[in-house]
Amino acid sequence: MQHLSIDLGTRSYPILIGAGLLADRALLERLLPQRNLLVVTNATVAKLHLQALLRGLGERNVATHSIPDGEQFKNLDTLNAIFDALVRARLHRDAAIVALGGGVVGDVAGFAAAIYQRGIAHLQVPTTLLAQVDSAVGGKTGVNHRAGKNLIGAFHQPCGVLADITTLRTLPERELRAGLAEVIKYGLLADVRFLEWLEGSLERLLACEEAALEFAVQRSCEIKARIVATDEREQGQRALLNLGHTFGHAIESATGYHDWLHGEAVSVGLLMAARLSARLGWLGDADVERVRALLQRASLPTSAPQVGAARALEFMAMDKKVQDGKVRLILLPRLGEARVSSDYDAGKLRATLQEFLGP
Amino acid sequence: MQHLSIDLGTRSYPILIGAGLLADRALLERLLPQRNLLVVTNATVAKLHLQALLRGLGERNVATHSIPDGEQFKNLDTLNAIFDALVRARLHRDAAIVALGGGVVGDVAGFAAAIYQRGIAHLQVPTTLLAQVDSAVGGKTGVNHRAGKNLIGAFHQPCGVLADITTLRTLPERELRAGLAEVIKYGLLADVRFLEWLEGSLERLLACEEAALEFAVQRSCEIKARIVATDEREQGQRALLNLGHTFGHAIESATGYHDWLHGEAVSVGLLMAARLSARLGWLGDADVERVRALLQRASLPTSAPQVGAARALEFMAMDKKVQDGKVRLILLPRLGEARVSSDYDAGKLRATLQEFLGP
Repeated sequence: MQHLSIDLGTRSYPILIGAGLLADRALLERLLPQRNLLVVTNATVAKLHLQALLRGLGERNVATHSIPDGEQFKNLDTLNAIFDALVRARLHRDAAIVALGGGVVGDVAGFAAAIYQRGIAHLQVPTTLLAQVDSAVGGKTGVNHRAGKNLIGAFHQPCGVLADITTLRTLPERELRAGLAEVIKYGLLADVRFLEWLEGSLERLLACEEAALEFAVQRSCEIKARIVATDEREQGQRALLNLGHTFGHAIESATGYHDWLHGEAVSVGLLMAARLSARLGWLGDADVERVRALLQRASLPTSAPQVGAARALEFMAMDKKVQDGKVRLILLPRLGEARVSSDYDAGKLRATLQEFLGP
Repeated sequence: MQHLSIDLGTRSYPILIGAGLLADRALLERLLPQRNLLVVTNATVAKLHLQALLRGLGERNVATHSIPDGEQFKNLDTLNAIFDALVRARLHRDAAIVALGGGVVGDVAGFAAAIYQRGIAHLQVPTTLLAQVDSAVGGKTGVNHRAGKNLIGAFHQPCGVLADITTLRTLPERELRAGLAEVIKYGLLADVRFLEWLEGSLERLLACEEAALEFAVQRSCEIKARIVATDEREQGQRALLNLGHTFGHAIESATGYHDWLHGEAVSVGLLMAARLSARLGWLGDADVERVRALLQRASLPTSAPQVGAARALEFMAMDKKVQDGKVRLILLPRLGEARVSSDYDAGKLRATLQEFLGP
């Protein structure tokens, strides 16, 4: 088992990564002392992993609530149903929520914990690669609004993250691949050696080799934990973690969150960020092709539906990263290093959008 | 103008109390440098005070959104309509919300600021006595759930509180009286000399004498600011501010938030807390009668509809102050001093509930 820690003063918490952690009663007792719990999950995940988790939680007062599966249900209605479940179970400030599932479950359940009775504890138990390397770590919680992704939310750190690698074996291959887009993101933005390791280990990862997955999750979480510790509330450096995401969110918004997995939209977004970086003279064309090749080897999309540059700009203008009317973008001075910039040539942004999304 | 400060480290902010502050452009520029604003108010308050505030805000990009008037609209639907207004006005993380109105406006608008784009700035401009002495100060924001008051919310400190005493002149007398219940609360829980001053100044307050109102608001805010500074997130001492509120909330919940103003329910709640304190042998009967007399002189209710002790206990069991299955109550060892207790005789609680609310 790998044991990382995210250093946030009184809000610090452990990230535990390994096989078979879900049912580890001693570990769960240590991470989560609360006696009254609501497990938030969805029907698919519950069928696969709820029994193991309930064994791990042992003798407590545990209620369970399933939310519908899919990004389109990451909304205020789903949130409200969680409040109803909390009230039905008569849970108070001394209770905790356990989020068992992927990014949607983690984001909505974490947000419910953030604002139920002005904040109760929660444990993240991510069961997808994407959630293990990204959404379960760092305290960003929230729901979507029709005008944009994660437009309503809170920073609310969990009391711990339990990344059970075993759960990734049950993941549909498409979701595993989507999660790899976020893993590749970490290599691109912070660690070219990790990027090289990914290029050399992709087949082992796609074959769900435990040791490879454990290292990929560990290194991703290390990078994320280091950045979040320096900038919990995204005043500066934390924005680097959004590499590929401003483009990706625009694709997701334009396609209504239905057809694309988040990681798939991020995949195209990463390539768009690399392409714009090349247009600005930062990356070479060979770097861009290297990014494209890795994404393609992971069977991730490198082109998007023609939602149109104008429409994408509309959605980008609603992004939380807008400041003084200009969209701040995360760009790549070189592979393994990212930078926040709002000082770019708007024409080159438009050309990049048109290249990928049509006019 | 009185200038207090609430000492919360990096979240410290000023509380300014005085006549005619709404339209003071220099003051507002200092308190609120943001250029893009949404003023949240309601139709009644807007008619009376919006023009003055807009003068005070000067040349900025200011949108306005009115919410319906009344505690029954302090809910997720009203919150969602504020998000729609924020999106329509294309406001981002660098924008701020100005809450112009009473407790409902302040709580809902403050909560919207807490969770829009994971938190933007907000200025509280309370226009009722109750909001000036209580709800606008201290960062508690939220909405009601049918199972209980303020069940959904966040701690989100404003960047300042602007208590313009002039606005109290336009307040319906019933609301002024309801606000006085909260003012009396501060005397009861923390300052017997302030209680004596209130007993001697009640007529001046009811006549809206500016100097008397300014002192009542100032002293109330001083007491609240001191307590909040020691315990921002209500882990201990801050609960003292709920004197009378657990009883009051039960009355409000049982009557559906329709017929009773919050301060009116608190008035009965204060007397119930005093009565239970006497049953426990802490206060004398003369103390209880002194509380009753002051509330009656302010034409505040000292008896409640017969909602029934059993039903009230149901609502109290959903209160956020429940810990380990027992409702923590705020009780009075003597006038001017309060204590949090869950170590009371449950029979005496039941007797007090029956005395006021029927069996």
